[in-house]
Amino acid sequence: MTDVSTNMRLKLPIVCFILQIILIILFGVLVQYDHEVDAKEWHSHNRSDYENDFYYRYPSFQDVHVMIFIGFGFLMTFLQRYGFSSVGFNFLIAAFALQWATLMQGFFHGMHGGKIHIGVESMINADFCTGSVLISFGAVLGKTSPIQLLVMALFEVTLFAVNEFILLSLLGAKDAGGSMTIHTFGAYFGLVVARVLYRPNLDKSKHRNSSVYHSDLFAMIGTIYLWMFWPSFNSAITAHGDDQHRTALNTYYSLAACTLATYGMSAFTAHDGKLDMVHIQNAALAGGVAAGTAGEMMLTPFGSMIVGFLAGIISVLGFKFLSPILEEKLKIQDTCGVHNLHGMPGILGAIVGAVTAAVASSDVYGGGMADVFPDVASGEVEASFQGVRQAISLAVTLGMALLGGLIVGFIMKLPVFGAPPDTLCYEDSIYWEVPGDEEGHESQLTTVVHSAETEKLNS
Amino acid sequence: MTDVSTNMRLKLPIVCFILQIILIILFGVLVQYDHEVDAKEWHSHNRSDYENDFYYRYPSFQDVHVMIFIGFGFLMTFLQRYGFSSVGFNFLIAAFALQWATLMQGFFHGMHGGKIHIGVESMINADFCTGSVLISFGAVLGKTSPIQLLVMALFEVTLFAVNEFILLSLLGAKDAGGSMTIHTFGAYFGLVVARVLYRPNLDKSKHRNSSVYHSDLFAMIGTIYLWMFWPSFNSAITAHGDDQHRTALNTYYSLAACTLATYGMSAFTAHDGKLDMVHIQNAALAGGVAAGTAGEMMLTPFGSMIVGFLAGIISVLGFKFLSPILEEKLKIQDTCGVHNLHGMPGILGAIVGAVTAAVASSDVYGGGMADVFPDVASGEVEASFQGVRQAISLAVTLGMALLGGLIVGFIMKLPVFGAPPDTLCYEDSIYWEVPGDEEGHESQLTTVVHSAETEKLNS
Amino acid sequence: MTDVSTNMRLKLPIVCFILQIILIILFGVLVQYDHEVDAKEWHSHNRSDYENDFYYRYPSFQDVHVMIFIGFGFLMTFLQRYGFSSVGFNFLIAAFALQWATLMQGFFHGMHGGKIHIGVESMINADFCTGSVLISFGAVLGKTSPIQLLVMALFEVTLFAVNEFILLSLLGAKDAGGSMTIHTFGAYFGLVVARVLYRPNLDKSKHRNSSVYHSDLFAMIGTIYLWMFWPSFNSAITAHGDDQHRTALNTYYSLAACTLATYGMSAFTAHDGKLDMVHIQNAALAGGVAAGTAGEMMLTPFGSMIVGFLAGIISVLGFKFLSPILEEKLKIQDTCGVHNLHGMPGILGAIVGAVTAAVASSDVYGGGMADVFPDVASGEVEASFQGVRQAISLAVTLGMALLGGLIVGFIMKLPVFGAPPDTLCYEDSIYWEVPGDEEGHESQLTTVVHSAETEKLNS
Repeated sequence: MTDVSTNMRLKLPIVCFILQIILIILFGVLVQYDHEVDAKEWHSHNRSDYENDFYYRYPSFQDVHVMIFIGFGFLMTFLQRYGFSSVGFNFLIAAFALQWATLMQGFFHGMHGGKIHIGVESMINADFCTGSVLISFGAVLGKTSPIQLLVMALFEVTLFAVNEFILLSLLGAKDAGGSMTIHTFGAYFGLVVARVLYRPNLDKSKHRNSSVYHSDLFAMIGTIYLWMFWPSFNSAITAHGDDQHRTALNTYYSLAACTLATYGMSAFTAHDGKLDMVHIQNAALAGGVAAGTAGEMMLTPFGSMIVGFLAGIISVLGFKFLSPILEEKLKIQDTCGVHNLHGMPGILGAIVGAVTAAVASSDVYGGGMADVFPDVASGEVEASFQGVRQAISLAVTLGMALLGGLIVGFIMKLPVFGAPPDTLCYEDSIYWEVPGDEEGHESQLTTVVHSAETEKLNS
Repeated sequence: MTDVSTNMRLKLPIVCFILQIILIILFGVLVQYDHEVDAKEWHSHNRSDYENDFYYRYPSFQDVHVMIFIGFGFLMTFLQRYGFSSVGFNFLIAAFALQWATLMQGFFHGMHGGKIHIGVESMINADFCTGSVLISFGAVLGKTSPIQLLVMALFEVTLFAVNEFILLSLLGAKDAGGSMTIHTFGAYFGLVVARVLYRPNLDKSKHRNSSVYHSDLFAMIGTIYLWMFWPSFNSAITAHGDDQHRTALNTYYSLAACTLATYGMSAFTAHDGKLDMVHIQNAALAGGVAAGTAGEMMLTPFGSMIVGFLAGIISVLGFKFLSPILEEKLKIQDTCGVHNLHGMPGILGAIVGAVTAAVASSDVYGGGMADVFPDVASGEVEASFQGVRQAISLAVTLGMALLGGLIVGFIMKLPVFGAPPDTLCYEDSIYWEVPGDEEGHESQLTTVVHSAETEKLNS
Repeated sequence: MTDVSTNMRLKLPIVCFILQIILIILFGVLVQYDHEVDAKEWHSHNRSDYENDFYYRYPSFQDVHVMIFIGFGFLMTFLQRYGFSSVGFNFLIAAFALQWATLMQGFFHGMHGGKIHIGVESMINADFCTGSVLISFGAVLGKTSPIQLLVMALFEVTLFAVNEFILLSLLGAKDAGGSMTIHTFGAYFGLVVARVLYRPNLDKSKHRNSSVYHSDLFAMIGTIYLWMFWPSFNSAITAHGDDQHRTALNTYYSLAACTLATYGMSAFTAHDGKLDMVHIQNAALAGGVAAGTAGEMMLTPFGSMIVGFLAGIISVLGFKFLSPILEEKLKIQDTCGVHNLHGMPGILGAIVGAVTAAVASSDVYGGGMADVFPDVASGEVEASFQGVRQAISLAVTLGMALLGGLIVGFIMKLPVFGAPPDTLCYEDSIYWEVPGDEEGHESQLTTVVHSAETEKLNS
């Protein structure tokens, strides 16, 4: 039976081809180069080459791109037998999501004469939206088929764009690095999906839900790239000049402070004082998440470091004490601990953003107020009300994520998408041709899979 | 005997030192900083710092650099026992080729008063030429000594520069991302070399010509870096402003569409519906190759996605059906399947470029025509004739590659370069000090090598 | 006993938290955004966004960042059982050092009204100073606890800032890529620390002081990233325009020449002609170190290649002949061979810098003299005297490193910092929760550790 339902021979090609052909048609009908990309448009204005937005944002875009494909992809290779799927499914759903996000974000963020205009900023935004889907992927890692993941991406990207539209366009909130739109949304969406897909008998695959020595090193590649490039992530779409500069700097110090907090807490919460790779791989990044909203504001290095420090502490405590509770009491099997890396630090970041916005003053921002808080600069709203907008945005994001995750979780649960059986979770060989560990070991692995399948058939 | 012929104790140092000393002398005689690098020159013009080409191209250069050294290097680590050689020989021949390419390209692309002028653009071009050599390396991976590879690089770089000169300077073709000059040339050159170096008894090393679990993960590092940075590759030397912007964007969407096609086709062509790492590692990149010529043109995102989609399909089909035929019928043992990743997608890219050029109109390009098709803008040729130029360029490239590869293959076959015996192909330990897999396993490997050598002596 | 002294349960959290809280307080009191980061300041000047230093330096900063965290971190993963510590302690001490360096460098390089002003240039400088600490880490790798390393970082960063102040501000030396300030200082500081921490019975851990197949591949990730991004490293803080351009180019060719020299020498010095991964991983980088001082000068590509070529030769010879002497005669157990990669090439770079400075003339530099040698341009000193300044700077650096390392070594030797016993050097499991190599192997490792601990208790 397993054979039939998880066999991707027809299902995956059909889904991939239908999705891609629809994307191509929609791009043909709806999408155009923006005025900095189109040959005629760009040359019809008399602008110098160095004014093209490409030179302000492309290096940041490439850093974000590395975070999405290497960062998220390798971070999830920590599982001993799920490296192909971690990197490979990450690759697949990201390649789909960035195309779909271009359309959804373009649709909600303003059409120009019935057309979606794209350029380097829309590419960054598409990667951002993709990041949100990959966060949710982390919560269900090892327990879903590639088709389920594509289905999740399809709906999550759509809801992401709706939520982003409400926050940035309707509510006038600021969230350049996405503490709310990306991290909080992606994490809680994924957690609810994980709840809906709860597997009471997952302990049948428990022996595979852990790392081996080299898989932890591969995961560190992901961690370090995420850590290094987070300043680029948070600053990629902020205003030119001091804003990008300041955001990168704030994030840099937030992450550094977070790292020391993480090491300290990891040793402190271990009964034998030994550092835990799970904490280092994940909690050390919480400082980037938590600086996502306020990073572009006049948070000061001092403020950034406090935020990072708190984020690291919260995140390790979450891994140590909250994750077991989520699993046992709330039946949320959060494979990568996204609640600790993206969920709680995302909420922290949203709160920090609300407070920092509420205390903004022209004494501090001067002529830069128009870039960071245009509505405050124009006198449309008070700074304190900008803080309220930010707080409301967090509530909206949580609501959208929880409701969206619930619905999408039930869609993903439909028994036609080829989900793996409980005995074969966290196992590459169900969807991949897998070679042996070294010469002669191949048969061993095949045996494991076959015996697991046999076991299932007998049960 | 093996000992004597493959021993690199004297051969490799002599070759490395002679080549490097010749390079140093030629650089001393021929090479100068260009006017944006030279202190006196730069300051004798009254230009602002931000106009220095460094700031337009250096970030792209570094991305290309990563593709050459990490991308190609790690992509080839998929073999279970050839990781040192894959990354290490890639490193060696690239370090040589980029110096030699600086001279050869400088010689053909215009001397200034008897001197070759260099700057960031020539560094990118040198890396591009190096990429072509590394593509050929993929075809002969595991079957050649480092000296053979240096000999190949020496001649291939030279022929690359000649072909590039014919295409870009004599024929007036456009090929910014090198679908023809880099990919088609490198692939068919390498395939002919592989044909000349055909080994009828290669099945003696067959057990080593496959991956293990972790080697496939290392290879994915190469794949993902190539995939992420391909937009920088194709846009690195296009004109400033909208051209770089547009090329990066086109490549981004071509690759995304290619990835979905690859996953679909990989599952579809597998008898059990399981994804094949070989396809994911290679075919998902074909969209970048195929956008190499037309990427800078007004291909539109729609056109780019169609190109990428077709490239992915063609590439997987090539791996599945064409590679076995090449090996059995044509006696081409293409280790990395460069025909599927660089050969066919390169030809596709050349054709797409010819067609896109032929339909170019000032309605679409406006004032940007001068950047993309200067000869069309100046009225020297019609757009349709620019298309013809592009098509002729493809034919020239194929001719140069086939003829060049044939000659260079026979040179490489001379029995003085220390090629490995059939029994020790795809094996690091013939040229490298290799530690064990883990404590105590070292002796096992040594045993394998020794018994293989003994076998050869007895035969 | 081991249990008690090396247990990090309380020690590490206390040290991390105290250090981080002190940092936060000092940042709160002393640190401000500079005028290109601060919203009010930037907008109070009427400057165009593209003039913000962020756009000139941030791409280079990110490359440097990758070198510090991925480059150094993974370069040290070559040890079979020390990958977690190599990447993980590198991560921890770098995250601390960059914060502390911001304060120390800010303090010495000029306060503005009692405040330290920070921006992208100070972030690069902080990363540079961190690099110096990581070089020293390489000399003591495997033999120190994380607390010892944090103590080392605390003092070394301080002394680095003092030495840098003497060289750049008092002596008026130029050292943009840090041949002296970073490499020579870090290497000799670390070597003296290693001498003070000499362990006569280190052979008890000898079997772990070597690589395995995959650990060498992980290390190559570090090597290649360092090699690729070294042009960014050396050019990151040189003057805008031709200076950055020239420095990157010089370093590129120096490294390429160095690589061929390294491969040649590695085969030549091996008794069986086989390449040694230790040389490739390290000596191929010496060309970047040696171009650290003169890279921004008019060294010419010709000069750069000679420097790189010599650096590669010296470095391999050092690994082959000098390292054993250092260990046996001078009792310096230099785990990573930093003397060969950073020490001797650093001195070579300093000498090359002194000579190149001494022969500088306005015929060659023209109006660019003011950027490279401001004191020569202003007529304050002769070029020959600038060369003397450079030479004196090397002597001062060596003196500071040797004296500083001696004192800090003795501080680190205090028996309260949890250094590992001789039997458990080069072993992750003393400070980390370590999973098995694959299923079922976990117990084996634990056994090793336990038996080693037992052995120690009995001895």
